[in-house]
Amino acid sequence: MADPPVYEWQPTTGEIARRAGIPKSDVLRFDHNTSPFAAPWAPEVAAAAAAGINEYPPADYLDLRTTAGARFGLAPSRVVAGAGIDELILLCAKAFLRPGGVAVATAPGYPMYAIATRQQDARLVDVARRPPDFAFPEAEVVAAARRADLIWLCVPHNPTGRRQPDVAVESVLSTGTTVVIDAAYAEFCGDDWSPWLDRYHNLVVLHTMSKAFGLAGARVGYSLSSEDLAAALQAVRPPGSISSVSAALATRALLEPERAAATVAALTEVRTTLAAQLTALGLRVLPSTTNFLLCEVGDEAPAVAGRLLGEGLVVRSYRRGALERYVRITARAPDENDRLLEALARTLTKTR
Amino acid sequence: MADPPVYEWQPTTGEIARRAGIPKSDVLRFDHNTSPFAAPWAPEVAAAAAAGINEYPPADYLDLRTTAGARFGLAPSRVVAGAGIDELILLCAKAFLRPGGVAVATAPGYPMYAIATRQQDARLVDVARRPPDFAFPEAEVVAAARRADLIWLCVPHNPTGRRQPDVAVESVLSTGTTVVIDAAYAEFCGDDWSPWLDRYHNLVVLHTMSKAFGLAGARVGYSLSSEDLAAALQAVRPPGSISSVSAALATRALLEPERAAATVAALTEVRTTLAAQLTALGLRVLPSTTNFLLCEVGDEAPAVAGRLLGEGLVVRSYRRGALERYVRITARAPDENDRLLEALARTLTKTR
Repeated sequence: MADPPVYEWQPTTGEIARRAGIPKSDVLRFDHNTSPFAAPWAPEVAAAAAAGINEYPPADYLDLRTTAGARFGLAPSRVVAGAGIDELILLCAKAFLRPGGVAVATAPGYPMYAIATRQQDARLVDVARRPPDFAFPEAEVVAAARRADLIWLCVPHNPTGRRQPDVAVESVLSTGTTVVIDAAYAEFCGDDWSPWLDRYHNLVVLHTMSKAFGLAGARVGYSLSSEDLAAALQAVRPPGSISSVSAALATRALLEPERAAATVAALTEVRTTLAAQLTALGLRVLPSTTNFLLCEVGDEAPAVAGRLLGEGLVVRSYRRGALERYVRITARAPDENDRLLEALARTLTKTR
Repeated sequence: MADPPVYEWQPTTGEIARRAGIPKSDVLRFDHNTSPFAAPWAPEVAAAAAAGINEYPPADYLDLRTTAGARFGLAPSRVVAGAGIDELILLCAKAFLRPGGVAVATAPGYPMYAIATRQQDARLVDVARRPPDFAFPEAEVVAAARRADLIWLCVPHNPTGRRQPDVAVESVLSTGTTVVIDAAYAEFCGDDWSPWLDRYHNLVVLHTMSKAFGLAGARVGYSLSSEDLAAALQAVRPPGSISSVSAALATRALLEPERAAATVAALTEVRTTLAAQLTALGLRVLPSTTNFLLCEVGDEAPAVAGRLLGEGLVVRSYRRGALERYVRITARAPDENDRLLEALARTLTKTR
């Protein structure tokens, strides 16, 4: 048997700075799909919550769940809180997969689906998305779904940035198998899955505070589903995976969604500009409905990413598989993107 | 097959306040074994960390692990960080238990051992600790350990407050089976297991920032072990379970351990006084090496706990098993303990 997949972490900002011989503050992460905008309101909220840090957070995270549910008109009994979507993916695997079970995902995709599946001693059926457009292989996914216990569906899709058509999502849900929609980037394309929850009781939707809401450091996510599926997740959830400071930050951010809306508006504009600029540099840029862009660089993609890394500019590259010729680039603040574009122009000239 | 054990959460402070019809601030938790002392330094540290909350924490938590290891003269490669001891227990189960495997614990004990074991589809052998003194059943644990994959050892022991003799711990370690020492209360009896790690490569020691260090709300713990066992835990650890604010708070607390030392000194004195006061009320109080006291109340223990709860005073009671006649009481600040003692005196008079 092959070794089970383990977490392959990106190098940390500290490591990159050390290797490049530059200060940590000069490192820019274009590989994490986080918001480039600091949260000036966050220190005050964090400080207030830290005043009571000697006591545990409430195990039910009721304020957070109530606030998250209210965004969609859902009761807190249909919301589960987790330490980012990562913890929620692991909980879905625990709740819905038994040893010997089968899950389905598309490849390339977010590596956590494979890890969570294998940690349950279940098997992942990876349906290929094919270059050059990496379209959602609907018929194959539906066929695999009929023989599976769980489907991992990333909508819109990371790392391609594509949004599956609603009818394709509907086809998968209609198999009746439990479907987990990882909606990490939902805010960037205005997705609201809550009306779907009434029609499909086999649906779990995962949201994160790490992207449009700009709280990646807080590690908070939440799921929406039927009460039954929420109860199944609660039953396997450890009682205190979110700090009281993070719960307070996430709750406040959800109560004041106009900030996330402004982030989405700003980054959507930035992304459009950045796509044109990258295209002008001769890269093939795939259409995106998110805050990142998948770009075909060619055979030299890993070398280009390596050169950028040497300057503290971190883009996501891929050591093997269908994305070897690609890099994924987060749309950051305009001045940060300019730094990347300038370095990329130099690097491409050198490589070609 | 019986249903797998699930988390049975204590009622939240919000729930208790609602039921008792009192403000949340009037609820006192004598059931969580947390420090009663707020951390006046924490808001500033939390605020500074929150300024960069839009980016992810470093997946390796190197500063935190380096600082934690340095306390014991251990390299960070021998330290794994987790979202409280709870996450580390779950990681130990993932790393060291396969489906059909066997773990050993003593009962009564911390419920997370059973939950983590069963979530791996492994079986828990629960060796009874017997009233009235709940001594560590060394011979039975050693016999069970020889046929097991993992031993859960809580030292000092929650909920009895007893410290197993070193020779007993040594007997268990000498079986060669992997032993996890949950050392959540180690600081209260001055335990330092780091010299043992050189002799026993089958040892993992778990520490928490929730008790002596007074950061329960931050949800941070760490393990000490050989490099090999640390690598096994890292391989199954999700990359971002601790928020950047919590990592900063824990690191600062570890760098300034004089505060934890003062907390331990204060609570040890308070515990001694409280034990005498509870004894004077006619309860049998077991000797403790921790910040809590197990007390034999008698048949009316659950009723007494229920009455206290009605006043917002939460002690840990047990619905079934060997501890039905007992309550567990955290030693809190003197004025808080006085409130409990006064209510307890009234309640016991009423019940008897």
